[in-house]
Amino acid sequence: KVELTIDEIDKGEYEHFMLKEIHEQPSSIGDTFRGRISIDKTKIFLGGIIDVMPKLTQAKRIIIVACGTSWHAAMVGEYLFEEYARIPVEVEYASEFRYRNPVINADDVLIAISQSGETADTLAAIKMAKKQGATIVGICNVVGSSIPRETHAGVYTHAGPEIGVASTKAFTSQVTVLTMMAFMLGRKRGSLYDELYKQLIQELTLVPEKIKHILRSEQYIKDIAETYKDASNSLYLGRGVLFPVALEGALKLKEISYIHAEGYPAAEMKHGPIALIDENMPVFVLATKDKSYEKIVSNIQEVKARNGKVIAVVTEGDQTIKKLADHVIEVPDCHESVAPLLTVIPLQIVSYYIAVMRGCNVDQPRNLAKSVTVE
Amino acid sequence: KVELTIDEIDKGEYEHFMLKEIHEQPSSIGDTFRGRISIDKTKIFLGGIIDVMPKLTQAKRIIIVACGTSWHAAMVGEYLFEEYARIPVEVEYASEFRYRNPVINADDVLIAISQSGETADTLAAIKMAKKQGATIVGICNVVGSSIPRETHAGVYTHAGPEIGVASTKAFTSQVTVLTMMAFMLGRKRGSLYDELYKQLIQELTLVPEKIKHILRSEQYIKDIAETYKDASNSLYLGRGVLFPVALEGALKLKEISYIHAEGYPAAEMKHGPIALIDENMPVFVLATKDKSYEKIVSNIQEVKARNGKVIAVVTEGDQTIKKLADHVIEVPDCHESVAPLLTVIPLQIVSYYIAVMRGCNVDQPRNLAKSVTVE
Repeated sequence: KVELTIDEIDKGEYEHFMLKEIHEQPSSIGDTFRGRISIDKTKIFLGGIIDVMPKLTQAKRIIIVACGTSWHAAMVGEYLFEEYARIPVEVEYASEFRYRNPVINADDVLIAISQSGETADTLAAIKMAKKQGATIVGICNVVGSSIPRETHAGVYTHAGPEIGVASTKAFTSQVTVLTMMAFMLGRKRGSLYDELYKQLIQELTLVPEKIKHILRSEQYIKDIAETYKDASNSLYLGRGVLFPVALEGALKLKEISYIHAEGYPAAEMKHGPIALIDENMPVFVLATKDKSYEKIVSNIQEVKARNGKVIAVVTEGDQTIKKLADHVIEVPDCHESVAPLLTVIPLQIVSYYIAVMRGCNVDQPRNLAKSVTVE
Repeated sequence: KVELTIDEIDKGEYEHFMLKEIHEQPSSIGDTFRGRISIDKTKIFLGGIIDVMPKLTQAKRIIIVACGTSWHAAMVGEYLFEEYARIPVEVEYASEFRYRNPVINADDVLIAISQSGETADTLAAIKMAKKQGATIVGICNVVGSSIPRETHAGVYTHAGPEIGVASTKAFTSQVTVLTMMAFMLGRKRGSLYDELYKQLIQELTLVPEKIKHILRSEQYIKDIAETYKDASNSLYLGRGVLFPVALEGALKLKEISYIHAEGYPAAEMKHGPIALIDENMPVFVLATKDKSYEKIVSNIQEVKARNGKVIAVVTEGDQTIKKLADHVIEVPDCHESVAPLLTVIPLQIVSYYIAVMRGCNVDQPRNLAKSVTVE
């Protein structure tokens, strides 16, 4: 039995749990890293996986299995693990993985991500990989749920109870855990030198304050939502570690507003989806200043050349994209590694307000359950 | 300079190149395996990769890079290589792979797939992986193009010139090559025993006749297209090796009819996209008789419970799904390994006719180029 205080299950001043949970993210992310980053911000310590650290640091390959929003967190994890820890990562839909006789070796580590810890397909994937000798690490939110009981080790996200069916704070907490793991593994494996390691930890600890800053633009983002609330379709584009954020942004809109939204790696647009673009198509572009910046600017130009509407999430002070895009939403300057945690926030807010304006039941969207405990 | 005979660049009796190319698939697939499968159908011989066979059979991991439709062929390849050759495969968007500092080892094999052999991102990905010591294998259609000149070895698809911008016969030829490679590698690695190996080769050689059979249903499929030509959205669902076929079916519709279509692994539907389903949403389901059959039947029931319209591609004689779905399109009974080659055909035909009925320029869809030779 889970005991919840009134405060935890109450919407408080917010109209919906989803809005409350969006606003909780500065503190929920803080809760995720509290006690796991040293006070002087120079070390990461994840007690739950200490026993499997030798396995993790020596893994030839990490497989991450998940479904839905957790699968998007997994894809962010893939980028971070490959970039900072230099371990090849394969991300799999749990439902596909469990049924397709995958190649699993005893030196593989499988990470399973699930907010509820009860996702049926993810649980089945774990059991299968365990039988074949893989080491299993869980990343779950609900303490004592089924997945943590099946794994060899794990890290709880500590995001607190999430009531809205569309996941928000659980996602950012999952990404926070994966970010800490990637940095820590990078350090242990020697692929991250000490100075950068400390800088990255610093960057992560600044995220809650930066999200607070973004949340102050809520009214401005709500106005953008008003402009596009009647769209019947939309595209979300990103590159690199922001590609999974594009997928997640699209899923949010789909889940609660029933608008058909789809995420794409920006460069794939020319291989098909660009045919969809006309003056009725809003295109959300994740375009913060990072190593893909020049490329994403040219993707924005391509969308504008076909008269698409561009809503770009950009780094504060960006002048170039401001001239090209129909709307820009600024996020504070940050290191690329934590950009997913910041850029997803405006997408959550846009989806929330579009759904509210369309009269949708935001916290209980049609056809969806909070945890998918059946296949 | 490429020399083409009039016959090759003429549409002949067909209204569009795309329709001609759809109809050419029995012979283009035959051309792909001609001279590569022994007359007694007991052996596969791919001369172009003989020099790299030791590398391939010992590969700890195969990375496949591609864009667009070729990326979908790559995903079919992933399933087949893992299932029959038991080698872990990672499929990457070329545009993402080249910019994200991926982990590449000298014992990795990278397979690059491109119809034109000129895809800019794929070419750049090859150059990067080559520098890091990986063995590069190309799968291209255009002989003497840039990619084959950069690779260590390769297999031409021999599909003949493809003029329609939306790829059809090039896709099935790419899948045919990957299928042959998977079987051959499986045999060499000992993961496929001889009897099954021969059976699988037999199954592959039967594909052209079976496609001819499907093409005889063209008028029936055209009538289905008529029913859904005014849809503004649609979903495509598949499981296992048919999940990439769902992606490819959605891309075809998107490219030439400008309908927003999206492919999903069927079990992921419950994690979000099911919220989109109402009586206006046509859902194409790949539901031939294979090991996922029971699961896909229950996915169809879920769609019907939300009043979605189901068009199912089924195995000839299927009675169960006939009772559930709004329309069924039958394909001949076949081994699971060749099901992608058969099930994609009706999806190509549906897309073609919907686009024609909407008055779209099928061979030259807006905003798209045949080969993406710039980033």
